Amino acid sequence: MFQTFDSASDPASSVARIAKLRKWLAARKLDGFIVPRADQHQGEYVAPGSERLNWLTGFSGSAGVAIVLTDRAYIFVDGRYQLQVREQVDLDIFTVESLIENPPPAWIAANLGKGAEIGYDPWLHTIGEVRALKQAAARNGATLVALADNPVDEIWTDQPEPPLAPVEIQPIAYAGELARDKLERLAAGISAQGATHCVLTDPSSIAWAFNIRGGDVPHTPLALSFAILAADGKHRLFIDKRKLSRKVEAYLTQLCDLRAPDALEPDLIEIARAGGRIALDPALAADKLRALVEDNDGTVMPEADPARLPRATKNEAEIQGSRAAHRRDGAAVAKLLCWLDAQTAGTLDEIKVVTQLEECRRQVGEETQMPLRDISFDTISGAGPNGAIIHYRVSRDTNRKLNDGELFLLDSGAQYQDGTTDITRTVAVGRPTEEMRERFTLVLKGMIGISMLNFPAGTRGCDIDAFARVALWRHGLDYAHGTGHGVGAYLAVHEGPQRIAKTGTEKLLEGMILSNEPGYYKEGAYGIRIENLILVTPAERMKDGDIPVHAFETLTLAPIDRRLIRTDLLSFEELDWLNSYHARVLAEIGPMVDGETLRWLEAATEPMD
Amino acid sequence: MFQTFDSASDPASSVARIAKLRKWLAARKLDGFIVPRADQHQGEYVAPGSERLNWLTGFSGSAGVAIVLTDRAYIFVDGRYQLQVREQVDLDIFTVESLIENPPPAWIAANLGKGAEIGYDPWLHTIGEVRALKQAAARNGATLVALADNPVDEIWTDQPEPPLAPVEIQPIAYAGELARDKLERLAAGISAQGATHCVLTDPSSIAWAFNIRGGDVPHTPLALSFAILAADGKHRLFIDKRKLSRKVEAYLTQLCDLRAPDALEPDLIEIARAGGRIALDPALAADKLRALVEDNDGTVMPEADPARLPRATKNEAEIQGSRAAHRRDGAAVAKLLCWLDAQTAGTLDEIKVVTQLEECRRQVGEETQMPLRDISFDTISGAGPNGAIIHYRVSRDTNRKLNDGELFLLDSGAQYQDGTTDITRTVAVGRPTEEMRERFTLVLKGMIGISMLNFPAGTRGCDIDAFARVALWRHGLDYAHGTGHGVGAYLAVHEGPQRIAKTGTEKLLEGMILSNEPGYYKEGAYGIRIENLILVTPAERMKDGDIPVHAFETLTLAPIDRRLIRTDLLSFEELDWLNSYHARVLAEIGPMVDGETLRWLEAATEPMD
Repeated sequence: MFQTFDSASDPASSVARIAKLRKWLAARKLDGFIVPRADQHQGEYVAPGSERLNWLTGFSGSAGVAIVLTDRAYIFVDGRYQLQVREQVDLDIFTVESLIENPPPAWIAANLGKGAEIGYDPWLHTIGEVRALKQAAARNGATLVALADNPVDEIWTDQPEPPLAPVEIQPIAYAGELARDKLERLAAGISAQGATHCVLTDPSSIAWAFNIRGGDVPHTPLALSFAILAADGKHRLFIDKRKLSRKVEAYLTQLCDLRAPDALEPDLIEIARAGGRIALDPALAADKLRALVEDNDGTVMPEADPARLPRATKNEAEIQGSRAAHRRDGAAVAKLLCWLDAQTAGTLDEIKVVTQLEECRRQVGEETQMPLRDISFDTISGAGPNGAIIHYRVSRDTNRKLNDGELFLLDSGAQYQDGTTDITRTVAVGRPTEEMRERFTLVLKGMIGISMLNFPAGTRGCDIDAFARVALWRHGLDYAHGTGHGVGAYLAVHEGPQRIAKTGTEKLLEGMILSNEPGYYKEGAYGIRIENLILVTPAERMKDGDIPVHAFETLTLAPIDRRLIRTDLLSFEELDWLNSYHARVLAEIGPMVDGETLRWLEAATEPMD
Repeated sequence: MFQTFDSASDPASSVARIAKLRKWLAARKLDGFIVPRADQHQGEYVAPGSERLNWLTGFSGSAGVAIVLTDRAYIFVDGRYQLQVREQVDLDIFTVESLIENPPPAWIAANLGKGAEIGYDPWLHTIGEVRALKQAAARNGATLVALADNPVDEIWTDQPEPPLAPVEIQPIAYAGELARDKLERLAAGISAQGATHCVLTDPSSIAWAFNIRGGDVPHTPLALSFAILAADGKHRLFIDKRKLSRKVEAYLTQLCDLRAPDALEPDLIEIARAGGRIALDPALAADKLRALVEDNDGTVMPEADPARLPRATKNEAEIQGSRAAHRRDGAAVAKLLCWLDAQTAGTLDEIKVVTQLEECRRQVGEETQMPLRDISFDTISGAGPNGAIIHYRVSRDTNRKLNDGELFLLDSGAQYQDGTTDITRTVAVGRPTEEMRERFTLVLKGMIGISMLNFPAGTRGCDIDAFARVALWRHGLDYAHGTGHGVGAYLAVHEGPQRIAKTGTEKLLEGMILSNEPGYYKEGAYGIRIENLILVTPAERMKDGDIPVHAFETLTLAPIDRRLIRTDLLSFEELDWLNSYHARVLAEIGPMVDGETLRWLEAATEPMD
């Protein structure tokens, strides 16, 4: 199994650990320390040894910060974790704050007094974050102190070592472009910016640029490493050689100088001292890198990670790979849904569905000789009221039966070598209520609304987000999350910069893959989400049209539960979209399944009217 | 007539005027001078004496800038004026540049050399503009020099004096709130910001805050003036007393100290020297005001004009006034459209329609004892290809017949004491083509799409703009302007801050009035625009809804040309909206017209299927 069902929390240890941390701080005359849920690369997933926030506080969510002062400690989490954090941390030690409404900079500005000195680890905060934190502290005369050693590492005696998962070459058949050519393009871009170098800090960018994949963090095939790209083409990759087979080492040596991870600091200092103009992404790069450059008379050029947009706009091989991955994944999901429908209500639980789904993916992967490499995130398997918890993660403590008359929400994804998937289906267990069917149909209208759009070049995600909501709005309903996120090509399932959301100010470009996942959540009752991945097609001029327009090609192929659809609420166009989609699901997935599943699929994709 | 049909351009005089300006500059060792189309208040309309750009260059558009250097001169205009400017200015003197793609700061950064000294009048540029211009000049070592005297004023011997239109009190029945109470609210806001004073520079804000109206600029009932509001309630209004009757003077004296316009500078200096913390809107206030404060040891607090949001969110009296104004205006437009339909194709021209429309508004105003005070902007009356020029203004030179088989676009508005209107209708002259009908219907779908929306609190104009475009996008079509602008209450027809546009990042609040005006323009052939004004209703919780949602109430009441509507392209909901709207038009406007017009109105609002 790629997923566990333990609650990864150990609040009982907090008292002693916090006490040790405070002793460490007192010895250095510091008034506090900031512990973010982040590693040196600012990724969504971190290696076990970087789970400092979880180790210290017990909180296991994927976003959060603690500020530990001498007398009191605070933990900042966003809306989705407000309940979970209260179950996971010792509330005698921690006060819970909102990461969104009162984030650390605002809290620091309001609460730190004159002369207070708070430590932070400059490897774990971006340049932009540290700027905001320092400005906030300065408001009342407090100071933030960059520490050379992270005190959590000092007191965490059994801290896991950095991971050493083997690195693989991503074959050109899936990558679609030689790493040599990608690196040449990047070098030209660095030169055009007037920079001499650029530090790639995001392992997703390194994976894309060098055509490599690894296994250092859960669910995303990353090899943790840094790279310094040079305008003159003399690139360096800082990676532990124990991760490299001879073949991979030989491959990488053709592209760059292979350097040990601890050579990064001296190399950067050397480049800075030689007058280097070094591009760093203020939203991604650790503040430590900025300090290394600036303290050694180099120049920091604030520039967005140059790999972001080329990585986000998939090439033809990546698109073909994604289509194949989605057919495979659709067959696995069809098997699962067929099996699910055959069970008696009340006999299944959430965990059983998760294990069965992984088994289905494994089977289809083996049958098609494209093995399941990983799941792309912990499956969200929410029965009844658990479905209303937007980022629910099932554990043995919360595991719930799928009862008659309830909705069941299943949000999952897979990593195959040719692509990353992410799909949500909500299904009826037994007989749904009319309210469930109405609201499911409103969510479906939003999903179809996005799917059917044409839009001109330059349209941003924020320009179209409301099409997923307007049917819900008409009934005084909404959902409290964005409509879609970018998705990688056998990389991170949450990949920037594009989004479909109010905050999605990035233009939607040909080749971008996004999720399209409106929802509706009735607290304490049920959750509905329908999610397909969609691909931005090339802008094309229509017959009699004035301007070329993009469309979305739907990649995800799995039936949408007909029992939950009220066709009287759909327009002709929407119904037509639904029936065409189901016809396509049958045509593309049908040949990959047989027996029981094929019969189920035929029924599940029958046209509606 | 409130509108003239002359081309307000005199390019022949440019040679001599530019020569004089250059002589003036040479005497002061300046390398150039910037002439914006702006007065001290940054309004859309300016008094004749502030038409410096027009006087100097011949260009009569409502936005533009000239940069006159010793050997060459440049004029910057946006896309809508690219053709017009080439007809109005002497191209031997001026090079035309794009105000959008290569605005003055970018141009200056690219073209001014080291040591160049360019003058500007700090009364005619905002704080934000000057900041951008100075940064751009500094790039290559050029300097911008704030001039104490405007050289255009020095050489413009017959420059008109500042206008002295009488000021009127806007009665409480229409204003809905006493000026005293508004000023108290504003003073409390200034205090809450930690400021001691705030300079109101926008005459619209002064008109709103003091409940006064004037007539100093065309089409907007403004009294040009400045105000300094004080946290302690000791407000000052800087206005020429010759505009004030004894009654108005007595009224204003109760609210503030009445000061002469030339007392503004010494008063501001005095406040600054006393340690004043003075709020100025960087996007509205003249840079001169900033300099006066900062050069005298005062503190400038950059804050948005505090009257913007309260002015934009209309109170109940203003809303009732607007509804009444729109019924009156709808009756006038119905009369005009009835008359238009009765004429033989090819006999009318654009100017005749403009004069007839003004006559209709005048008549209805007299009948209802709410006289037409002004038109709210120069009527856009575009037959055939002229309709495709988005900001077309008919002159005797461009006047065109309304020919058989063409579309005719009429965009106009009125100023009544109880409200400002703005309406566009596009009508068929004779038999329209199928393409015209199809595209008209696509535009109508967009207009209805906005009209039918519900949306939660916090929704911004940019979140909904695309609903007006999506039907066009589906056919590879679009329009190159925003969907809607804010509208004042017997004030400016273009009023910020709210907009429905990609750039509309302001939240839509209860009581805001906006236009809803999608279009389609086929260059050289025809233009289509359908415009209603809409009002943001209070957010209300629906039956079974989770969150309160706003809606739009349509204020404009006039038939939409049924001959141009293809009902087969409308959804049931859209058709239902159209028929309900037309039923409402008949119910509300029918009682205000009779005879021929009533019969026409009954036919024009008949349900379609």
